Formats: sequence, C-alpha cells, structure tokens
Amino acid sequence: MNQDVVVLVSAPDRPGLVADTTSYVRDIGGNIAEAEQHTIPGLAFVQRMVISIPSAQSVEIMRDEIVALTSGVVTCHLIGTRTRIALFVSRAGHAAYDVMSKVALAENPIDVACIVSDQPDHADLARRFDVPFVEVAVDGRSREEHESAVLEALDGFDFDLVVLARYMRILSADFLDRINSPAINVHHALLPAFIGAGAYQRAWDRGVKLIGATAHYATVDLDEGPIIAQASTPVSHRDGPEDLARRGRELECAVLAQALSAHCQFRVLLTGNRTIIFED
Amino acid sequence: MNQDVVVLVSAPDRPGLVADTTSYVRDIGGNIAEAEQHTIPGLAFVQRMVISIPSAQSVEIMRDEIVALTSGVVTCHLIGTRTRIALFVSRAGHAAYDVMSKVALAENPIDVACIVSDQPDHADLARRFDVPFVEVAVDGRSREEHESAVLEALDGFDFDLVVLARYMRILSADFLDRINSPAINVHHALLPAFIGAGAYQRAWDRGVKLIGATAHYATVDLDEGPIIAQASTPVSHRDGPEDLARRGRELECAVLAQALSAHCQFRVLLTGNRTIIFED
Amino acid sequence: MNQDVVVLVSAPDRPGLVADTTSYVRDIGGNIAEAEQHTIPGLAFVQRMVISIPSAQSVEIMRDEIVALTSGVVTCHLIGTRTRIALFVSRAGHAAYDVMSKVALAENPIDVACIVSDQPDHADLARRFDVPFVEVAVDGRSREEHESAVLEALDGFDFDLVVLARYMRILSADFLDRINSPAINVHHALLPAFIGAGAYQRAWDRGVKLIGATAHYATVDLDEGPIIAQASTPVSHRDGPEDLARRGRELECAVLAQALSAHCQFRVLLTGNRTIIFED
Amino acid sequence: MNQDVVVLVSAPDRPGLVADTTSYVRDIGGNIAEAEQHTIPGLAFVQRMVISIPSAQSVEIMRDEIVALTSGVVTCHLIGTRTRIALFVSRAGHAAYDVMSKVALAENPIDVACIVSDQPDHADLARRFDVPFVEVAVDGRSREEHESAVLEALDGFDFDLVVLARYMRILSADFLDRINSPAINVHHALLPAFIGAGAYQRAWDRGVKLIGATAHYATVDLDEGPIIAQASTPVSHRDGPEDLARRGRELECAVLAQALSAHCQFRVLLTGNRTIIFED
Repeated sequence: MNQDVVVLVSAPDRPGLVADTTSYVRDIGGNIAEAEQHTIPGLAFVQRMVISIPSAQSVEIMRDEIVALTSGVVTCHLIGTRTRIALFVSRAGHAAYDVMSKVALAENPIDVACIVSDQPDHADLARRFDVPFVEVAVDGRSREEHESAVLEALDGFDFDLVVLARYMRILSADFLDRINSPAINVHHALLPAFIGAGAYQRAWDRGVKLIGATAHYATVDLDEGPIIAQASTPVSHRDGPEDLARRGRELECAVLAQALSAHCQFRVLLTGNRTIIFED
Repeated sequence: MNQDVVVLVSAPDRPGLVADTTSYVRDIGGNIAEAEQHTIPGLAFVQRMVISIPSAQSVEIMRDEIVALTSGVVTCHLIGTRTRIALFVSRAGHAAYDVMSKVALAENPIDVACIVSDQPDHADLARRFDVPFVEVAVDGRSREEHESAVLEALDGFDFDLVVLARYMRILSADFLDRINSPAINVHHALLPAFIGAGAYQRAWDRGVKLIGATAHYATVDLDEGPIIAQASTPVSHRDGPEDLARRGRELECAVLAQALSAHCQFRVLLTGNRTIIFED
Repeated sequence: MNQDVVVLVSAPDRPGLVADTTSYVRDIGGNIAEAEQHTIPGLAFVQRMVISIPSAQSVEIMRDEIVALTSGVVTCHLIGTRTRIALFVSRAGHAAYDVMSKVALAENPIDVACIVSDQPDHADLARRFDVPFVEVAVDGRSREEHESAVLEALDGFDFDLVVLARYMRILSADFLDRINSPAINVHHALLPAFIGAGAYQRAWDRGVKLIGATAHYATVDLDEGPIIAQASTPVSHRDGPEDLARRGRELECAVLAQALSAHCQFRVLLTGNRTIIFED
Repeated sequence: MNQDVVVLVSAPDRPGLVADTTSYVRDIGGNIAEAEQHTIPGLAFVQRMVISIPSAQSVEIMRDEIVALTSGVVTCHLIGTRTRIALFVSRAGHAAYDVMSKVALAENPIDVACIVSDQPDHADLARRFDVPFVEVAVDGRSREEHESAVLEALDGFDFDLVVLARYMRILSADFLDRINSPAINVHHALLPAFIGAGAYQRAWDRGVKLIGATAHYATVDLDEGPIIAQASTPVSHRDGPEDLARRGRELECAVLAQALSAHCQFRVLLTGNRTIIFED
C-alpha cells in the first residue's frame, strides 16, 4: 500500500540538489509522479515533487531527512487533505458565488466552514449552499471592536484559510495574527497599480486601456502581500467606470479561483514576498 | 469626383447631435462610409466619420460649418495624407526594427524622415532601410545641451510625429515644446504601474504574474501622458528580470504599432488626458 | 415622460441611411443615447440605436416607419424587457451554475423558467436557486420519444429562449421548430474545429497548443449555427485530455455569459448565418 | 573547464527515471542547471536537462550511457550551437521581415543561409539584411520541376532548418525528403480549422469571433504536422476578410518566432505527431 504526498522544498542552491532529493525518494522505495524544480538566482532552489511512498514510511521522518539533505525548508502534504475556508464577503457577491459554485461542483478538495459578512445581503448565498452565515454588522463599532466581534463569532468554526472574496474592510495586523491562518484576498486591479479602494474609478480616471485583478496573500501592508495570480482584459473608450467594474468581475473570479486551486493543491511556495506557483 | 475625409468631432453633448452631423453630410451631397460616436458622461460627445464628399466641396468650409453646428472641436483629414515620423531609439532596437519593417511593408501611410539616436548601435538599421541616421552622442553634455544638439541636428528634416521607440532619455518640457509635433512613447510597463526606468526589474522585485507595455503621448510629466494602447502577457516564477524584458519586447512592439496605426489613420481623439481610440 | 427603446435595423446599403434613421428619431422628438452602424460589403447595412422617445409615440408605428425608410428588417425592444430562459443541462454542471449565479446576482434582465435535464444530478442546483427542476430521463426512449417527453414536460412553462448549458443530446430539427424560441448552445471547442462530441479528447489527440469554446445559436445542423462568442486559452504538453476539459470550463462559462448578455440586451442581429454583436 | 549541454530524453516510463538520470549527471561530475520532466500517460516519459559537465567528458559517451539507462531516445546539444535556416517566402513579407529583424537583433543563435522565393518581391529584404536571395520563379513549371529547380538553386547553401514564412506553395513528400532538414511552417488559422489556402476568407465566411495562427513542422500531409505554437485574437463584425488577414499578421509573426526560438534552443521534443515544448 502506498500514500501520495506533495513535497515542497525551498533551500539554498548547490550542485546536486535534484539528484539528492530524487535519489532519496527512490531509496525509500518511493516513485516520483511529478517533479519540478527551479533556481531563483541569488535566492533559492525550489522544488515540488508529487511522490508515492510506502504506507509504512513516516512522512514526518521523511520530511526531517529531506531537511537534513537540503538544509532547506520542507513541507509535506498528504494528497486528499481538504482545505477548510472561511469565506468573507461584503456587498459585491460575484466572487463569493463563484467560489461556492466551484465548491458545490467539487472542483477542489475544499470545504466551506462559514460565510462571514459585514452585510446582510448574502444570507441567501449561505442558505443556498447550506453553510452557516455569520453576519457581523459594523453598527458604529470601531475597526478594533468589529474585528473582535468577528473573531468571537468565528470561535467554534474550524478553518485553515481565510478567503476575502471582495470583503471591503481593511484588516489589522492584529486580526491577521489572531485569525491564525493565511488569508487570500482578491484586489480589483493589477497590483501594484491602484492600491486601495475605488480602483476601477481611478483606472478610468487615468484612461487605461486594460484592466486587471490580482489574488494575493493578505499581509499587514494593504495590497502589498505576495501575488498569487493576475489576469487582465482590454477596455475601450466606450467603457465608463461601471463598465470597468463589470468587466473586472470575471477577472476577479478567475484569479481567485486560480489562487484557491494553487493553495489547496499545495502548489504554492513562499519565498520572501514572492510566490512560486507550480503549474497544475 | 469625390474626396474621402475623416472628420473628428469633440463637442458638448446635447440631443440631436448625431442627426445634425450626419444630416449635414447628406445635405452637402456626401456619403457616410463609417460613423461612430460615443458620449462620455459629463465630459463630451465624440464622433468619427469617414465620408466621401464632392471634390468641389471645400474641406475648410465644411469644418467651419460642423464647428458652428456642434460648438465643438473639429478636425478634418484627407484620406491618403501620409504621416512623416522622426524615429528615436537608444540601445534596444526591437521596437525600431518593428516600426521600420512595417513601414517597409507599407502597412500604413507612414514615411520615416530619419532615425535619431544617442547611440551608434543602429546605424545599420538606418542603412538597411535607406533612411538618414542622426546620431547625437551625449558626450558629457547636460540634458539641455544634448537636447539642443538634437534639435539642431533635426533642423532640415520634415516630420510631424516623433516616435520614441525605446529612447531612454527623459525629454524636457522645453524640448517637447520646440519639437513642435506630438510624440508617442512606448513604456515597458502597464502604466501607471512602474513609472520610470528599470520597470522590468521592479516588476520582478514585486513578484507580478503579468507584465505589460504602454504606448502613450509623451507629455512633460514622465509617463503621465494620455494612454493610446496597452497589452499584457503572463509571466511565471521561472522568469527572471531578463525573461520579463524578453517577453515584454513583443508587447512593446505591439502597442507601439497599434498606437502608430491609430495616429496616422486619424482614429485618435484627445479629450483632457484621455484618448478616444476609434477602432480600425 | 419617455420610453427607452433599442432599435435594430438590417437593410440594403445605400447613401444617406445613417442620416435618414437618425433624423427620423430627432423628428419624432427622440434623443439618441447610442448609435452604432456598420456596412458589411455586399451584404447589408446594420444599425443599433438606443433611443429615448416620448411615451406617446407608438413603438409599432415607429418600427413601421423605419421599415419604410430603410426597406429593411427592423425590430424594436423596450429596455427593461426581461428574457425568460429554459436552462438545459446534462452531467457537467459548471455552465449551469454560472448562469444561475449571474441570474441570482441580477447581472442581466433574465428570469429562469425552469432547469431541464436528462439526468437527476442537478436537482440540487434547481432547489438552491428556487426554480423548478424538470427531469426527463432517457430510459431507453428514442430521441423522438425523449424530445416529445421534454416538450410535454415543458408545457406550461413560459420562456422565450432555450439555453443549452452543456446539454449533451443532439436536438432534432423538429424539436427546435416546436420549441418555438431561439436556442443558444455552448460548444467545447473553437468551431468549426472539433464539431461534435469528445472535442477535448480530439483536441488533445491533435496536439493543439490552444483550446477554446464557442457559444452559438443552435440550428438543425449540429454546431453549424451562427457564432455569438468565442474564447481561447493556451495549453501545454503537461495537459492531458482532462486538463483540457478543466481549463475549458472557464471558457465555456465565459462565452455563454457573453452570449446571454448580448441576446437579452438586444445587441445581436442575425444576417444569414452570421451574427452582428454590438458591443456592450 | 566545463561544457554546457542540453539533454533531451524520451523513454518508456518506469519508476526511478528522474533519480536515475539526475544521479547519472551528478556521478559524472556534472551540475544540473535546469531539469524538467513529464509523463504523458500511456505514451512516454520526457525530460529536458540543461547541464554543465566537465570538458573532458565525451558527450557522445554520455548520450550512449543515458540511452542504456533509460532505454529511450536521447539527443545532446552543445549550448551555443547555431541553427542555420533557409527562409522561404512568397508575396506576404511580414513573417519574413520579422524573422530577419529578430536575427539582426541576435535574439537567438540563428544564422540565415539564404532567402528563397517564388516571387521577386523580397529581393529588397535580402539585400537589406545582407543575405543571398534565391528566386526560383514558377514560369509555367510543374510542381515537380519547380521543386527540382529550388533544390538545385539551394545546392551549395548550408542549412539545417527550412522556415516557411508564408510560402504559398505546397511541398511534395519528395521535396521534404530531399531537403534533408526539418521544416517549420506558419499557417494562418488555428489548425485543425481551416486547413489549406484562403483560411482568412473561410474564417470570415463562417463568422468566427476569433482568429488564430499555427506554427508546425511541415509533413507530407498538408497542415497536419506536429503543432509547435498557436495564438489567437478576437475579431468583430466590423472586420472583413482583409481585416482578419491584417490582424492575423501579428499572430503569424508571434507563433513563428516562438517556434523558431523553441527549435533552436533545443526545447522541442517530438513524440508521434505531438510536440513537447519545454518552456523558456
């Protein structure tokens, strides 16, 4: 009997690393289904292997031995592991609907713990897809108070990824810290252009001929986190700011879907403020 | 006998403008081959007509009458009018080669008055395509002195458009003023992102997943002029800064070609810092 | 008080048509919000106007007068008119989910009369979005018998457009005739390439480097109807047939959404086996 | 001292292949700069390594040993090896100009042995880029006679790749055989759609909303050879057949450039009628 594992390695580059890791897998009786590696000059050697190893092999020990072999950072993920998300949304529901539809269609090993909103608008969405709806209205609360209320409301929900599907509130460093799981945000522009709110209006004001969307890990610096996916589409003089927003919706859904797939398939490796996205 | 004319109108919007301009053309015995108009809410009514009118009709008078009709800005251009360009290039020659190839293939009514450079590299290019090569080396001159030398060297060349095909020197307001013709620049990023030099390196530093290029009219504010064309292409973690530059070359050629076509076919209308690009 | 109307004109080309139709609108006290026209050499003059006319103006009479003026085919559509669709789906539910999500988000004036399927799989989808689910299993019936059963089951449902969102049964000419409304199909290839079933597998067999999807009006000749929208995406040697299918899902959703928007916004004009799609 | 080599392996898949080839490189004192491998289910294991090995190591012996190790087909290419092309062109010169410009800019290790044409049009192109022009007019000759004349004229020119940059004559199996080097063709459609002549006109007749171009290895079956690169661009109802041809020119140049880069950088592996294109 075998178990299938994704191994992600990020290590200082040196001659022989590919041979070393792949030989190690062979030596423990494993088979390599996929192996992709890349050297970022001056930064790191990065590798992703999809391997099949004997069930008797401890994944923990394997990880430690690859660490010893490479002097790198190594993570191992059993294929089949499901990612549980907390889905945040404000008024605009297109990205959230798209996430929920793809979950319903079982496109990825993703479960939705709950839908969180500062607005009542999408209770319907939650009901339709049979997941709890957690509304925490702002109600004159400060950001600090609102975030505390959200954290309290999330208590008892089990998730390992926050998905900000057009959630319009800026999250504090403290919140991101206490939420204790990575967060993926979708921004309605091609970062680093048009950071912050009102991106479509500002893109129109500048007279761009192409708009875009960006999915990235949220960090304390607004819209400065590691980029996971970007997409763009042409616009013309016939398009006003609302048309830009309309055309952008499809891009936002697309980049968020790509980011979610990459994350839950263990195809993302972080090095500094940069992502390595191994292809699917 | 007829003459074919492009009419560009930019006017305050009001009911009946389309009927008024198209009826006017009918009334002077003209025929409309193409007519496209658009209202930019709060800004303007813009229209482009390609019309065939009797040879006896004065274009000047027609223009004045359409001005009176619309209270707008109106320009008329005889189809067949050729645009003469002064082509500026520094080290990277791909955009200049692309412009010259398309001129040689007669893709547009464009003639090249001369190729101007601060480097000797592309004397070959000029020789190959049988146009004068004007090299003005910097030679320790200040920007002001260098620009004066360029203007002097250009004296005697007849052109009505400057094309900055990867010309790496920042032009002063004074130069742009004295050159007395519009200038189209190609920037190696999706403006307003990565304004200024080293755009590919900075794009890589930020970890973008998509790069782009922008053709725009040059104004005194670096990279702030009206955008004419933009294009983008995906990049991956396998791409270093040089790969971004390599992939970007094709985009730079493409947006510059689009901008040149639009300009010389009288498909560009400027309103504020914004272009209306009527489609070809 | 005014009413807003979309006017679609398809007429033999002749000088003065633009002036004639736009002057007519002015003369009945109307205002033109948008007007786009185009001449297809040797085929037709086509025009779309979005106009605002006095409420007292009979749309019927206006239509007749524009017919008289242009000797063309003219249709008029009150803005705000909602399109009711019957949504057909078989096993693969992504396109149907995408349609339903966009309907729920009110992106277009579309109502869903019912979801029709030859499979039980998507009863959930119908329940989630609160629309009737009409399952007509094949159960060994001939195509003729199955189609009769579908028509019978649809009796009592009111719709004016059939949407085939990955419905895997070939419809007979008789069915298309008796359904008495246009049908839009999404095909999982860039027609006319890979007509018929198994398109992704056949695309892979041929070793293409780019796949696509096509939304078109269904006609009696399988996959030969007028094309409304097409989109494509690159694929690589890493992609097997299932990967092509996976990457294609997003394209299928995109082209179907574009086709539905164009249809329900009265931006489609049919001339022969060709569509004119006026831009949104 | 080291030598840099590209190794291409195509072998029956079995466990341990990656470890075996990469360990072999390590064991001969080499370093792996890049390694990419992929399993095509049911077909083959394919691998491309860029390695640096001691100068003393015989490449021939290394190749034989990797053959023994993998039971596969193995080719080794010294980095820096230049590809010499014979560039064929008929009337439309855009693709040929693009190839020559990129050669002049030294984008790839490519030399041009000569430009071959059945037309006199592009003698200028050859003169501009200082390469011999070989015109072989048809002059009422049969295909067989014309091909013989071409082969005769090419005698004495040294090349290892034929590039058909819009060469409008169908080549016989005999010619392809006698030319004794692979040939890359650019077709003005998204194969397998619109095989043969007049592709843009036929695409327009069908009313497609997207056109494309394909670069592929030429084989005896017209337009049936292994596809190397494809690209597409949207078109609208405003575009007539000539507009399709105009928009397609850029695509033709792009796919041909991609194909040439892949070929001369030893990034192409053929398996059956399918190409594996390792990314640059």
